[in-house]
Formats: sequence, C-alpha cells, structure tokens
Amino acid sequence: MSDCGGLCQANPKVMTTSKIGESPRLEEIGIVAEKTFHHPNPLVLENGKLDEFELRYETYGKLNENGTNCVLICHALTGDHHAAGYHNDKNQKPGWWHHLIGPGKPIDTNLFFVVCSNCLGACSGSTGPASPFPQSPRETYGMRFPDFTIADMILAQKLLLKSLSVRGIEVVIGGSMGGMQALQWIVDFPDFVKKALVIAATPRHSAQTIAFNEVGRRSILGDPNWENGKYSKESGPNIGLAVARMMAHITYLSDTGMEKKFGRDQQSDSSNAFEFKVESYLDHQGRKFVDRFDANTYLKLTKALDRFDLVGKEGLESTFRDVKSKVLVIAFTSDWLYTPQQNKEIVTALHRLGKVASYLELDHMHGHDSFLINSHEFLRTVRAFMLGMNENELRHQTEDKSGKSPTRYDVKKEADFKVIDDWVNPSEKVLDLGCGTGLLLEYLRDTKNVFGLGVDFDLKKATACVARGVNVYQDDIRKVLSGLKDNSFDWVIFSRMVEELDEPGKVILEALRVGKRVAVSFVNYAYWKNRYHFLKSGVRIRNDVHPDSWESSNLRNYFSVRDFELFCKDANRGNNSFTIGRRVFHRGDWVKTCKFLPNLRAGLAIYELIKN
Amino acid sequence: MSDCGGLCQANPKVMTTSKIGESPRLEEIGIVAEKTFHHPNPLVLENGKLDEFELRYETYGKLNENGTNCVLICHALTGDHHAAGYHNDKNQKPGWWHHLIGPGKPIDTNLFFVVCSNCLGACSGSTGPASPFPQSPRETYGMRFPDFTIADMILAQKLLLKSLSVRGIEVVIGGSMGGMQALQWIVDFPDFVKKALVIAATPRHSAQTIAFNEVGRRSILGDPNWENGKYSKESGPNIGLAVARMMAHITYLSDTGMEKKFGRDQQSDSSNAFEFKVESYLDHQGRKFVDRFDANTYLKLTKALDRFDLVGKEGLESTFRDVKSKVLVIAFTSDWLYTPQQNKEIVTALHRLGKVASYLELDHMHGHDSFLINSHEFLRTVRAFMLGMNENELRHQTEDKSGKSPTRYDVKKEADFKVIDDWVNPSEKVLDLGCGTGLLLEYLRDTKNVFGLGVDFDLKKATACVARGVNVYQDDIRKVLSGLKDNSFDWVIFSRMVEELDEPGKVILEALRVGKRVAVSFVNYAYWKNRYHFLKSGVRIRNDVHPDSWESSNLRNYFSVRDFELFCKDANRGNNSFTIGRRVFHRGDWVKTCKFLPNLRAGLAIYELIKN
Repeated sequence: MSDCGGLCQANPKVMTTSKIGESPRLEEIGIVAEKTFHHPNPLVLENGKLDEFELRYETYGKLNENGTNCVLICHALTGDHHAAGYHNDKNQKPGWWHHLIGPGKPIDTNLFFVVCSNCLGACSGSTGPASPFPQSPRETYGMRFPDFTIADMILAQKLLLKSLSVRGIEVVIGGSMGGMQALQWIVDFPDFVKKALVIAATPRHSAQTIAFNEVGRRSILGDPNWENGKYSKESGPNIGLAVARMMAHITYLSDTGMEKKFGRDQQSDSSNAFEFKVESYLDHQGRKFVDRFDANTYLKLTKALDRFDLVGKEGLESTFRDVKSKVLVIAFTSDWLYTPQQNKEIVTALHRLGKVASYLELDHMHGHDSFLINSHEFLRTVRAFMLGMNENELRHQTEDKSGKSPTRYDVKKEADFKVIDDWVNPSEKVLDLGCGTGLLLEYLRDTKNVFGLGVDFDLKKATACVARGVNVYQDDIRKVLSGLKDNSFDWVIFSRMVEELDEPGKVILEALRVGKRVAVSFVNYAYWKNRYHFLKSGVRIRNDVHPDSWESSNLRNYFSVRDFELFCKDANRGNNSFTIGRRVFHRGDWVKTCKFLPNLRAGLAIYELIKN
Repeated sequence: MSDCGGLCQANPKVMTTSKIGESPRLEEIGIVAEKTFHHPNPLVLENGKLDEFELRYETYGKLNENGTNCVLICHALTGDHHAAGYHNDKNQKPGWWHHLIGPGKPIDTNLFFVVCSNCLGACSGSTGPASPFPQSPRETYGMRFPDFTIADMILAQKLLLKSLSVRGIEVVIGGSMGGMQALQWIVDFPDFVKKALVIAATPRHSAQTIAFNEVGRRSILGDPNWENGKYSKESGPNIGLAVARMMAHITYLSDTGMEKKFGRDQQSDSSNAFEFKVESYLDHQGRKFVDRFDANTYLKLTKALDRFDLVGKEGLESTFRDVKSKVLVIAFTSDWLYTPQQNKEIVTALHRLGKVASYLELDHMHGHDSFLINSHEFLRTVRAFMLGMNENELRHQTEDKSGKSPTRYDVKKEADFKVIDDWVNPSEKVLDLGCGTGLLLEYLRDTKNVFGLGVDFDLKKATACVARGVNVYQDDIRKVLSGLKDNSFDWVIFSRMVEELDEPGKVILEALRVGKRVAVSFVNYAYWKNRYHFLKSGVRIRNDVHPDSWESSNLRNYFSVRDFELFCKDANRGNNSFTIGRRVFHRGDWVKTCKFLPNLRAGLAIYELIKN
C-alpha cells in the first residue's frame, strides 16, 4: 500500500502566501486511488465479533518520518471514504470535502497525511450488513451483522492507522456522525489524539432525533420487500428506504434554506408526477439513495447513532475525565437536528473539567448540512484551528473602526491589561469575559503559562482566539458563567465590559461564584471632566472613550467609582461574601495613576474583588 | 334539529365573578349529542361537484333571537366535531377543547351559541373520501372524491349555519388547519364574521411543511395495501398511514417538549419491541390513528393544506383587501411547523392594510400542539379576546413594581399622555411604540375615535391591550416598524421608550418613514438637579424616575433636550427631511411647564417631529 495516496499524481505546490479573505488559485488534489485495508484477524465488538474485516479508504498527502502528521477524517451517516480528489478523469465528481482538503487548503495536504475510511458497518466497501455472510457467502450478513457501535468504528480505524504506520493523530475531524466518532476517539484513545475538530455533532441523540430515526426504520421494516432483512440485492425495500431517506433529508436542511431553494415553486417537468418542486427534489433524493445504500445498513447505522450516549448515567464530565486532546466544536445556528445547544454541552462539560476546548457557532442557513457547504466562514474557522493565522490575518480579524489594529505590543499599552497582567500569578486559571480577539489570554499564556478561557459573542473575534490557540466560548457570558463550577477559576476578568450588561450586579456576583478573584476594569463615568462637561453643556460626552453620538450609540450602563463601591458595600451587607482587594486608578490619560479622590480624578478604575 | 345542543342536559349557571388568576369551580358542559346536517342539493366545489353532502356536528349554548351570537369552532387536520362535553356517561372522553368551552369558560356557552362541525372531506361522519360512492354505494369515494379545498369546507359550514338560523358569526376560532379555515372565512365572507381568532396557523405552507406532507403521502402510496385507493375498510394501507402519522406527530411537538417527556428513557414493557420510550409512544400514536382515520382522506386533506395559499401571486394584502373582521392571531414560540414568523405575516399584512388585528405569542414548550393544551396563559388570552377583562383583572395585568396600578383616571395625570392627547386629532391613525397595557390608545379611541396600533414586547401587557380592544403587535418595535408602509400612520408615538433602544436615531428616522408626525416624550437627563447631583456626588441618580440602583438596572440610552436637538439638526443636515414642530417642557414635577432654558429646567420633554 502506498502512503502517498492519490497525491503522487497531483502537483502539491506549497501555498504559503494565501490570506484569509482572499482566494488564491490553489493547487488541487488530482486523481486519487481507493484502497482496501484487510484485517485478517478477529475483531471483538461491543455486541459481537467479526472473524476478519475490511475497510475501504483513501489517503491524501504524505506521512512524515515520525508518523505524527496524520489527520483522520470521519464521515457522516451516509457518507464514504471519498473525501477529496477525483476517481478518474471521466468521473469528475470530487470528494465530499474537496473544498476543505488539498495543498494550501485548511486541511493542508502539504503538511498533513490525511486519511479517510468508510467506517466499519457501512456499505461503501467496508465490512458491514451488506457484505457476504462468511458462513454462507452467497447471502449477505443482513440483520445477522452484529449491532455495531461508534466505538467499534474507532477500533477498526485504529487498526487501519496502525497498518499505515501512523503513530498518533494530529487532528481527528468529523461532522455529524463523523463528529461523534471524533468524540469517541478522544474518549477511547486520549493519548493518541492531539486535537479534535467536532462539527455539528451531539453527545447523544435527543428524543426528537430518535423519533425521526425510528419512523425511518419503521418505514423500512414495514416494506414487504424487506423480508426480515433477507432481501436480495435486486429487490430490497426500496420504497421504505426511500421514504426514510426523504424524511431524514428534511431534517438535514433548515426551514429557511428550503424556503429559499424551493418555496412553493411548482414543478414544471413533463411527468406531472409532482405538484411542487420540493416534492420532486425529495423524490430524486430518495431514488438516488436507494441506488447507493443498503437498507439493513441504514437500520443498523441509525441504531448505532441512537445508542451513542456519552452522557449516560454518570454524565458527560465523567466520560470526558481523561480527555487530553484540544477540542474545537463548531455548530450551526440553523441546525435543528444536532442543535447548537447540544454542541455546547460538549464544550461546557470539557470546560467544567478544565480541559482545552473552544466553541464557535456559524450563522449559516443550510441547517445540519452546513458542514458540507463550501463557505468562506467555515473554511476560515477550520483553517484557524488547523493552521492558526499569521499576523496579517489576525490584523484582519481585529481591526476596529478607527482602522488601528492592536498588536502584541499594544497589549502592554492597554492600561487595564497591564494591571491585570501584574495581578495574575503564573499557572493560574483565568476566565476572560468579553475576551475580544484573545490578546490578553495569549499574552498571559505565553508569559506566565496561564490556563485561560475567553468568552465572546462575536464570531470573528472568537475565531481569532482559536487561531491564537486561546480557548474560547462564543456565547453570551451569562450563559457560559451559569455552566461553570464554583471556584473553578483563580480569576474572572471583566475588562471594560460590565457597562454592556443588564443588571451588572448579578453578573459580578455570579463571577464571584465561579472565580476566587474577580478583576473589574471600567471607565469612571464620574471623572471630573465628564462631570464638568455635563454640568456645562448638558449633552452626552463624546471623545475617544465614548466615540458615538447619542443617536448612534448602543445601550450602556455607565457607572462610577463610587457607584461601584456602593454596590460592593450593599452586596456585602449581612453576609460579607467578598472583600475589595487592590484598586488601581488611572488618570484621564489612562497612564499616570492617581490615589486620592479617585471618583473625581480617575478616568479608568481597576478593582480586585476577593471572595471570602 | 335542536339548537340547544347537549346543553339541555347541563346546568348553565352564569359565572360572573371569575377572575383571571383564579380558578373558580366552573359548571361543565354535560352530555352532548352528535347531530347530522344533510344538504340534499348539489354543492359546487373548486375542483368538482357533490350531488349532496352531510356534515356531522355538535352545538353548545343557545342561539339568541337575532341569530347573532354564534361562535364557530374549526378543527385541525385530524380533529373532529366533538369539541366539548361528553358523549355519554360511560365514555368519559371530553371534547378536544373542553377546557376552553363551557359556562363561564373563555368560550362562554352562557353567552354564545357554539357550533363545531366535522369539516367537509373529513372522515368523522361528514361526507368525504371514506363515504359511500353514490354511483356504487358499496364502494367508497376513495380517490374519486374531488380535490376539495379549505374554501370548500367553509362553503359547507355556511350552509350548516344557515340551517341553524345563524345570521352572522360573532367569532370564528380555530387552531392549525382550523386557523386556516378561520382565515378563509374572513376572506370569503367578510360581512358575515365579526371576529376571528386564528391560532398557530399559516397563510400558506412552507417548503418544509409540504416536504413533510409529501413524505407522509409517499409512505401511504408506497404501501401495497393502498391499492390505488381502492382498499377495503378491513385491509387499508395501515403501515403506510401509521408511518405518515408518526412522522407528522413529531412535527406537532417541540424538541424541548419531547426531551422533557421522554428524553432517552428506555422502554420497560414486556414486549421488548422498543428500545426507547419515545419509540413506543409513536407506535401507539400510529396504531391509534389507523383505527380512527382513513388513508385516502389523509391524502386529500394534506393536499388541501399544501394547496392552501392566501399569498399567491398577488400577495397577502391583495387577499385581505376586503376583510372586515377583527382578528387576533396567537402563535407559540416553540411551534416549528407553523412558526411565529408565519403567523406574524398574517397580522403584518392586515396592519399594512389598516385592518383591526392583533398578534400575541405564547412561550409554551409544547410546539404546534400547544393550542390543544390546557394552560392558564392560553385560556387568559382567549378570554381577553372573547370577553375582555373587568377593571379588577386589568389591574392584575398592569400592576407595576410600586404596587400602584394606573387606571383610566391616571391617563390624565400622565403628563406626556396629556400633551399627546392634545396633539392628536379625531379619527387619526396612531402607532404607539411601547404601548404598555394600551391605556393611551384606549383613551384616544374612546374620546376621539382614533384608530390605534400598539406595539409591546410583553405578553401580559399586550394581552391587556387585547382585552381593552386595542390592536396590539407583541414583538420588537424595530421589526414591526420595518413591516409597515410609508406614511401609513398620522402619528408614531414614543412615550418614554426611546431610552430603551440601541441606535435610537435610526429608529426615530424609521418612525418618520412610517408616520407623518412623530411624538417623542423623554426624561431630560440634563435637568439641573441631575447635573448638580452628578457634579456633587459622582453617582448615578436614584429617584422615582430612575428607581434602580446601577447594579440592578437595565441598559439605557439616556439623553437630554440638547442631545435630541443636536440629533435633529444632524439628521436634517443636507436633506431637511423633517422639522421640529411643537415642543412642550415640563419642570421637575412633570406638571408645570417651562419655556426658557429647557435643557436645564425641564424634567420631561415632548417633541413633535413633522415630516417635510
């Protein structure tokens, strides 16, 4: 077996200058060869045993000498091993993730040895229910094939990788069922996998998803041609399988996506078989599917998915206890099959364990199938996780309105960053609420080996965090806080963002539950120049701190040093839950400090709150 | 035929003292009789003709002498005419809306003559595909039954009502397909229907809904027992129909609702036929359905729904042009079949035509089927529309934190209301953004015959508007504004709510697109006491206008008289799109007016902006 995959026939020129936001003409993966891995020995499964098995697979790129640059791609329910390239000159159908995999692409075959196998139990060349039954090779296994699981798939993949001399996975990547395989990988082989990119997945099926799958299975089982799974290749339960596929296909799309694509357009073909375009589209999907998929395999695979359950009785945290991989979970807002909420559960559990994990959410309209769509945003997030970004690209992400772009050097200039940097001790755990592009956490990590987690609602900023290798949770800070454990961080930092919160007192107290110390930096609204300005002119102040005029501004909750101290006093009345520790006040220039009359003289205030 | 329905056997005590928020023991509808209306003459349908037809129906309550107190209940896809009461002592299964209909209930049988019929084309006793085929009565119509429509159902209902001496419908009510019938009623017979309560409906099916229906039909058509619709009663396409029903049933529930009810609970019955509880629940639903429903009817009914299209090529406004009924649309947040967005389209179109319509959205977790659930909130909204509220109940809705409850008298006291009342001329059209419980609009309507539309995000307040008979749209004011036409109102009013808006300038300009004049009342933040307080103490002010401390407050965008005037000047730079008209300034007591130095001396400012 050749390790170079089909790339021997391509021309893998290294693309070093590609910028995010531009689309340089990339060299493509050319013709690739399908290969077969034969495992001649028994494989013990969770619910049975195979005496031997085969996996159909493809590879792209070249394994390095240490065998450590492997990227494993895991496919979805009805996908296969043909992830990139072309099978021949005539069949110009590219692999299903061709836009993502190749020289200079986010999954860069100049750097990585990419492997994708048809999973065990599937029907595109790997051993599964549609394979010959060993005891009677003229029949298929059919329903006699063991009730295989996602964990079984991973076992088989591991043997394939061993045969390819892979010593460790650099990144395991998958969407939907592929994402569930990626999760199983990091649970079952924590030392073997460095990073996992989990896309549009779930830790377990919801009741709704099980229900849809069950209806699909019922449709197959109810088809008289199913014949208890003993149908011949020519006369399977095609109607039942097509109905199951049609229904499932609806769940892969979004309401909005379907409305845009079909709406109520009438079908105009000559057959008159359909009234609406969406009906003939679904019919086409059903027919195509029947041609390429096996009904028993569909029954067994959907059961494997329904039974997949990383939560169980002990909870997700228990399952993830030994995870060592760095995880990025990407969800799609319009995905109503494996919802953003389900994807978040994965990251929340990892964060509660103090693991290295990030969450990004893309607002695509294509529903669950968004992970198959070639979109700029999706490519960028995958690239950020796989390759990081160079300074140019990061600047692109972080540019503010003024056209200035903060650099590493700017960190030092930012007054509150400087103070907070001073307060945080080496190797502490820091939660940065409203972390922006992750400058502070990157700096603290690089200089003090701090374990950081950032939270920001903005996708671009959160993607920059991922590119910097900073953990980030792209969500509302209130929601993230509520999912974190008591005292799970040494520091919770609000760097000039409390003024963006409704009922800020509650959020600060919640931060004091999660963190041992809280640092709050804020613009002192009662700075004497503001007061004087307001007294004199009676209009809202406009300067570089408050750049917007009233009519263009967003809602804010400005407050002063004294407001803050009064809050601390009130919040502590009776229970003494926290103490004010250090306080640093900067004058109007935000550079020189001041000690006396801070409510009058300070432009910027930074407080340390210490939980008692 | 008796007009008293089953109520002859009940004891209809009048309940006059029931309060919202309490649950007095209500007298119930007792045993009701099913009745049959036979129409011996031909009925011309949109796509065919029936020589005669029957409708199965029930009635509750008594028709008044003028024949004008009829409430028509329209059922959903698989519902029937048994809406309330019981069929006999043994069969204790109450009607599907029993909780809503009865003496003292929201659909009060002491006041109304309530009619519910099994719709034409359905299979619970009315003429439809399962009825005997006239030319060969031993067979059923089957697929030979005309492709009937929602409009055909209404035609048949009209004949039934005529036979009952009903001279006009007081309220037509329906959920889901019933809501679509209610819409068809107000379109086809605008003079016959006073009010319509449309619940969880849609002006037309989305591509996704058509897709689900098509898969269901495919499942039936693919069942060999369907036999081109010529199956016998004993051997119909039961498997296909059950699968269709199981799938449809999932779309009636919400993800959250299913998760709460079933989660991943394992099935523990002895049969071992199912792994998960949700699977056996669906199986049960499928089985039950096959026993009571006819497959051909299901095919024809779902097609009638898919073809229902009030939008068409001309748009919804064209369809609604002649509507005269007062409409309330209720949607459920978790309904993903007929989404809130689809329900809003109905109300938006009516508002664009200047019709009397309101929109309420209930945050129930039961998905589309929420309209069948007995919930306090749902009962309250229906009651508000049907019966209004008394002063006690309204007080309940409008109580603010201080425990004070504004009354009709309070309107006069509210300074800005007084001024705005002074500015608005009789019979003008007024849009009140942030209308609260609708006091101002009720007052303007009662004193000046003003046509008002209120917008408020709060369900309780919006329900109070409905109870006052004030048009209300429960939604974000930005979204509502964007749906309204240029110059469609004489006045747009912001009564002390601009400070709750992001980028308030944009919203005010948008209001100037929709209205000819805009009234903005606001608290002048630069009032001298505020300035003095801020200068002296350097903390945020707290008084009855600003009751919350910083830490408990929501985000705000406070501004001053001068801020506002600067905005007007800036917004007009170059294009002169509007002029400031009248301005009224109240001093700190909000009672006495002031003319000079308003930015310093005024506590409250009210501006009139006039579009040029």
